[in-house]
Amino acid sequence: MKAFAEPAFAAQGIEARGPVFTSLTEVVAQRAPGPMESRLAEIREFLAHDLGSIEQDIEAIERRPTPMHDSAKHLLGLGGKRIRPMCVALAARIGAGFDAAARDLAVASELVHNATLLHDDVVDVGDRRRGAPTSRVLYGNAASIYAGDWLLVEALMRVRRAGMADVLDRALAVLSEMLEAEALQLKRRGRADGSMSEYMDVARGKTASLFRWSLFAGARAGQLDADACGRLARFGDALGVAFQVVDDALDVDGDADVIGKDLLADLREGKITYPLMIALERDGGLRTLLAEHLASKNEVLEPDAARAALASIRAAGGAEEARALAKRLVAAALDDIAPLPDKPATRALESVAHSIVNRRK
Amino acid sequence: MKAFAEPAFAAQGIEARGPVFTSLTEVVAQRAPGPMESRLAEIREFLAHDLGSIEQDIEAIERRPTPMHDSAKHLLGLGGKRIRPMCVALAARIGAGFDAAARDLAVASELVHNATLLHDDVVDVGDRRRGAPTSRVLYGNAASIYAGDWLLVEALMRVRRAGMADVLDRALAVLSEMLEAEALQLKRRGRADGSMSEYMDVARGKTASLFRWSLFAGARAGQLDADACGRLARFGDALGVAFQVVDDALDVDGDADVIGKDLLADLREGKITYPLMIALERDGGLRTLLAEHLASKNEVLEPDAARAALASIRAAGGAEEARALAKRLVAAALDDIAPLPDKPATRALESVAHSIVNRRK
Repeated sequence: MKAFAEPAFAAQGIEARGPVFTSLTEVVAQRAPGPMESRLAEIREFLAHDLGSIEQDIEAIERRPTPMHDSAKHLLGLGGKRIRPMCVALAARIGAGFDAAARDLAVASELVHNATLLHDDVVDVGDRRRGAPTSRVLYGNAASIYAGDWLLVEALMRVRRAGMADVLDRALAVLSEMLEAEALQLKRRGRADGSMSEYMDVARGKTASLFRWSLFAGARAGQLDADACGRLARFGDALGVAFQVVDDALDVDGDADVIGKDLLADLREGKITYPLMIALERDGGLRTLLAEHLASKNEVLEPDAARAALASIRAAGGAEEARALAKRLVAAALDDIAPLPDKPATRALESVAHSIVNRRK
Repeated sequence: MKAFAEPAFAAQGIEARGPVFTSLTEVVAQRAPGPMESRLAEIREFLAHDLGSIEQDIEAIERRPTPMHDSAKHLLGLGGKRIRPMCVALAARIGAGFDAAARDLAVASELVHNATLLHDDVVDVGDRRRGAPTSRVLYGNAASIYAGDWLLVEALMRVRRAGMADVLDRALAVLSEMLEAEALQLKRRGRADGSMSEYMDVARGKTASLFRWSLFAGARAGQLDADACGRLARFGDALGVAFQVVDDALDVDGDADVIGKDLLADLREGKITYPLMIALERDGGLRTLLAEHLASKNEVLEPDAARAALASIRAAGGAEEARALAKRLVAAALDDIAPLPDKPATRALESVAHSIVNRRK
């Protein structure tokens, strides 16, 4: 077993205490991943100092009493997994450590993520997020639109302040990618004729691109060399796709009535999950069924159709395939970062990858 | 009279032909400004090369067939005055000339402007813009939200490419200012109790900040010294406020029925024009009248109330005061840039200022 210590600032060299993590080889050998939720909690403990300083910066963002500010604050205050800032911090710690620039980049990754959520909830008329009413429900669509714009600008200010031109250029390129993916999703609204390659384009653009950037930005802040930065960027890309397909699998694991019913609403928003994509490829009848109901004016699938659709998705084994794909992607990505310095942060990053593949909520 | 020549690239030194402009002193002496619309057309001719290359870049922006791209393209394609890019180009030409960096900054100024229009039209449920249906009417709110985000990113990519860190920092600061102004406007939705200082904060944030940036960015691209850049930035700020208050005055010059009726709708959107602000300060009865109608559920003012409100605004002389303020601001700003190099572009910029103050549509 390899141990990794709680860090404080890596530069201060505080090492050799804190929780112990299972290495990749052992996880693979065991084939029984163990308690993954607690694993993520351990990594949070490992990064307690970094995540604390990230939260401080997020909380310190200007708090003027306007609907725009309230809207942004509400969403940010609900927390979420903060998995992108964790990625930035870990990549930085594989290198020289977590400093002010790494913090700026970590906060930026979370702000960009929240900016997209604010706009997505307006676009999709979303009512619930992170167990609470969405910002748009509480403060209105207008406030959420400007709040998303505002967080985007706050994010870019931090990226600029971090002082690495290539990281800024990539941030802008990633934003562009994310928007292209949203555009593609808009375009296929109300259709059930998408291809797997379109699905992958959207998953890569909407989710993987920001993970890729987070790992790259952290690596650059940690002053890793170009080869290591490239490896971590690729790792982030794989992690992001894995994150998305597992998210999709979780969707299909949930309550059958809700899933079946919401299927039509999702398709009307251009959203296709990986398991649904698999099922559509294998079951021509499902495609016809959904196309027929899409042609109707119904918001949600009728009970019979919902049951039939879900049965088709489950028969196709889409959720299992999603998890299998995530595992393959992560395994290859872990191989790719094998040459990186053998540090506690490296072990922790591996652990993040496993916890993503194996998460159950 | 001072002549200014058609430029092509300033570096190529093509000078001494093209239209002739009236100098500031003569305009002031005449007190009869003459045909201001044709003046703007002359400046466009003077800048034909620059504006042509700006349009080329705008047209070359990626054109994938998605609702997001279509939404952005629709608005950009309708043209508009392109007054911000003109400001960038003129400031650059007061310096070393209009080069690739100046073009990037000029295009960025227009893209930022259009990005805000796309979001504003969603927020205000706007149906018409530049004599055509708004993008959100044609392609939907969702597409317009992402299109605004996209143009913002495209703008920042160009600012970054121009390679001046301070210009990029100011661009981000200006975006933040613009959003703070939108936030303030949201906050005062449905209220008729705003103050003149709040009005000025919104006008400065929503309009003046981008003019200020455009002049500063052009000056930096033209390699002017810090003093000249500061003068042009202040000039832009004054020009922006003047532009906004004249815009407000034009609102009150129009068709009486429409103006009176829309007053309530504007207030529900947090919008107060300068003439209305003047009238509210002077006529307590108007404030009470509007507050009463705001308390109702009516979308627009009833005919009697509309006539009374408009009579109050016109009696207060709000439109005349707006034009007088614009004139004072522009006169002071022109004094401020008097030490700048005496070039055709300087004369043209003065002319832009006059055309803004005196425009009738």
